Amino acid sequence: MEFRAEIDVMPLKALLDPQGKAVGASLKNMGLGVITNVRIGKHITLSIEAANEEEATAKVDKACKDLLHNPIMEYYTFKIEKA
Amino acid sequence: MEFRAEIDVMPLKALLDPQGKAVGASLKNMGLGVITNVRIGKHITLSIEAANEEEATAKVDKACKDLLHNPIMEYYTFKIEKA
Repeated sequence: MEFRAEIDVMPLKALLDPQGKAVGASLKNMGLGVITNVRIGKHITLSIEAANEEEATAKVDKACKDLLHNPIMEYYTFKIEKA
Repeated sequence: MEFRAEIDVMPLKALLDPQGKAVGASLKNMGLGVITNVRIGKHITLSIEAANEEEATAKVDKACKDLLHNPIMEYYTFKIEKA
């Protein structure tokens, strides 16, 4: 069965996000000062072939843990749905 | 009223995504060959102060159009909810 996963990898909330700060400052200069708390991470989409949703979830979790996120600086969330 | 926006900026579907290809190849080497079609973009979260949801949506759309995405290579989607 084929599943689609959508993964977000974001900088840990306790850490400063310099890229987000820079974008926040640029938005302010553009007259969009109502926008604050900008944080920027990665969005990853992928397809996965698995027997069921539990197996797909386990594989995606392994991919996140072992390759896609750096636990020192980032956390991840994902959702899976049938393709 | 305060709103939260979650924005995804992804490489256009018609374009090759070299970063996604590289991650897909690494996953295969790690024994996760069941994962395919990896595409990697940006995930942006932000807070926005606006009178109502329509105004918040308009401001976030302007931010995406004018700063956050490069229309030649990327498309964006977002959702807004009350903070």
